[in-house]
Amino acid sequence: MENFTFYAPTYFAFGKDTENETGKYIKKFGGTKVLIHYGGGSVIRSGLLDQVKEALIKENLSYVELGGVKPNPRSGLVYEGIDICKKEKVDFILAVGGGSAIDSAKAIAAGAVYDGDFWDYYQGKVVEKALPIGTILTISAAGSEGSADSVITNENGMFKRATSGEALRPKFSILNPALTQTLSKYQTACGITDILAHLYERYFTNTEEVEVTDRMIEGLMMTMVHEGPRVIADPDNYQARANIMWAGMMAHNNSCGVGRSQDWTSHDIEHELSALYDCAHGAGLAVTMPAVMIYNMEHNVMRFAQVACRVWGCEMDFNHPEETAKAGIQAFRQFLISIGMPKNFEELGAKEEDIEKLAHTACYGDVKAGTLGGFVTLNEKDVVNIYRLML
Amino acid sequence: MENFTFYAPTYFAFGKDTENETGKYIKKFGGTKVLIHYGGGSVIRSGLLDQVKEALIKENLSYVELGGVKPNPRSGLVYEGIDICKKEKVDFILAVGGGSAIDSAKAIAAGAVYDGDFWDYYQGKVVEKALPIGTILTISAAGSEGSADSVITNENGMFKRATSGEALRPKFSILNPALTQTLSKYQTACGITDILAHLYERYFTNTEEVEVTDRMIEGLMMTMVHEGPRVIADPDNYQARANIMWAGMMAHNNSCGVGRSQDWTSHDIEHELSALYDCAHGAGLAVTMPAVMIYNMEHNVMRFAQVACRVWGCEMDFNHPEETAKAGIQAFRQFLISIGMPKNFEELGAKEEDIEKLAHTACYGDVKAGTLGGFVTLNEKDVVNIYRLML
Repeated sequence: MENFTFYAPTYFAFGKDTENETGKYIKKFGGTKVLIHYGGGSVIRSGLLDQVKEALIKENLSYVELGGVKPNPRSGLVYEGIDICKKEKVDFILAVGGGSAIDSAKAIAAGAVYDGDFWDYYQGKVVEKALPIGTILTISAAGSEGSADSVITNENGMFKRATSGEALRPKFSILNPALTQTLSKYQTACGITDILAHLYERYFTNTEEVEVTDRMIEGLMMTMVHEGPRVIADPDNYQARANIMWAGMMAHNNSCGVGRSQDWTSHDIEHELSALYDCAHGAGLAVTMPAVMIYNMEHNVMRFAQVACRVWGCEMDFNHPEETAKAGIQAFRQFLISIGMPKNFEELGAKEEDIEKLAHTACYGDVKAGTLGGFVTLNEKDVVNIYRLML
Repeated sequence: MENFTFYAPTYFAFGKDTENETGKYIKKFGGTKVLIHYGGGSVIRSGLLDQVKEALIKENLSYVELGGVKPNPRSGLVYEGIDICKKEKVDFILAVGGGSAIDSAKAIAAGAVYDGDFWDYYQGKVVEKALPIGTILTISAAGSEGSADSVITNENGMFKRATSGEALRPKFSILNPALTQTLSKYQTACGITDILAHLYERYFTNTEEVEVTDRMIEGLMMTMVHEGPRVIADPDNYQARANIMWAGMMAHNNSCGVGRSQDWTSHDIEHELSALYDCAHGAGLAVTMPAVMIYNMEHNVMRFAQVACRVWGCEMDFNHPEETAKAGIQAFRQFLISIGMPKNFEELGAKEEDIEKLAHTACYGDVKAGTLGGFVTLNEKDVVNIYRLML
């Protein structure tokens, strides 16, 4: 284990009807004038938005609204949100939705107290301050409800970039598993995939002696392997959704990723796919991850064999550990297919002729340095090969 | 899973030499006049105390000192600490040591801003406010570095009582695994036992559908089973100590205990032993836990079988799950013996003739209600039977 710091001061209210206390939590963390930030129709149709407004009115909080966040949230709406915050003297941002609404809210929160262009933060500038944020989570996936991270798609070129900063960590997050019950099976499966990706990206480390975080990651993975198919079979299964919801937060608040190098190759390679084709991030990851794993497997066969045995129930082949490693990747891929995820470029809606461009943007786009990967360092040629494995 | 709230806003600085930044962290959390609170000779002999003072001086912080915390920390020193804080206008308490120093610091922190007797808080009064606390941990065991809990022995009758309150959660905790290298094998093993106890007490639940927290607990248990013997064999193994240290914090910050009923029977029964005989808490738990498990096993055989298979590598006996359950308890007991823990009353220094008194105090002492247990409700007679199993 390497030295690290860890600080995760988000207040979680978990369970049925917890969204009715939203106003109370906003007051607890000092908000008086709120921007409610959300996506499309589902939070309106389900009545959640009205319910939230009522909870704010109950506590005498005033608010303005900005809906319209799309999956793979975009810079344009962020600028709009920042303008509203400055004009209306908003002092608290409430995101209602999934990772997209939350990530967009984080970008607005940082931009609202910054004189420059908020995109600076997505090009390497450190986020030092931001308006306080609260969230009401409606999709278990991104882990943004408990993380300091945000990913935004720049509409000027359609590429995704991430930022991170303690000021972006939500003050509170309301996690009611029942609110995820309206999701389609496909959206639910995308979330499951994203959560597993957050675990795998931490699992692929070059740091030795990381038993505690390995075991925590494996435990969270096994939770997803157990609960994922249950919730796909029965979308109304509150308990399965509850287990997934807490696992999704724990997968990304980094308590299981401390003191070890991490990877994020699959996220970097996937981001180009969802930015260009506007596919769901989870669906993109389902296609990307097995390809990255196959490509990187030889770097540390025993690590792949370990997850194969501990999580996927493979038997260790002591004479041919690479066979065990492969069996684990195969089991993971089959799992993704079984919950309804796409398995190749075609099913994702991606095009072979874009591969060179995708690889170039992944490695050189915007402020990138020409390589990516925290487990294996990959150059543009490697990334082309990985995209080809997805065909 | 049941509804819950979770809030763990402690800043952790983990790794080598992190204690040299103590002054910086105290300032970050608003301290100006510090009470350094510690135990006996070891922090003086090792040079840690001088090093910490230097770190405070470097940041122009003034301080007063109160040493002398004993294992199973006592009310007398708490009163002394409260007087010092009030007289010297202390605004930050720094605990240097293990759970005893930290728990004592928490009691002082609460008492220093309260006009009544601090013991009120250990008799059920809710802790609403306290001075801010920081810790430099030297023993992986109690988990007090990341928890809202404190346990104190009342010298007026020699019984232990616990309190809990968000205000008691440390603002920061410095976790340098190297600082635990000076511990004896026995102290180290006591810590390992305490950490396993915190996990088992959460594992024994009556809440159904708790896969995510089950898996997290099991992962942390497996970490202890793997790293425990390594550190006993080689006390200088920094990496094993690092894994144990993070597992010890995670075991008790309650992220793996949320949304489920918990037990704490073993702690309640043990507290009478360490209060009366002044044995190490971990050693008392090593004798108590297997007895409680044997006594409670029939309440939920499958839960005992699950931990036996998932953590202790037992094979499931589908015709006789109770045999699997027993094998898991036996494996745990053998593990404790293998790391040097006592196995019965005699080895602990406890006396058969005290059993009636111990059971009575455990059930009726101070403000207790006559029964204990969150998994199985136990009365005085049950507790007598459990103590008898330890003979």
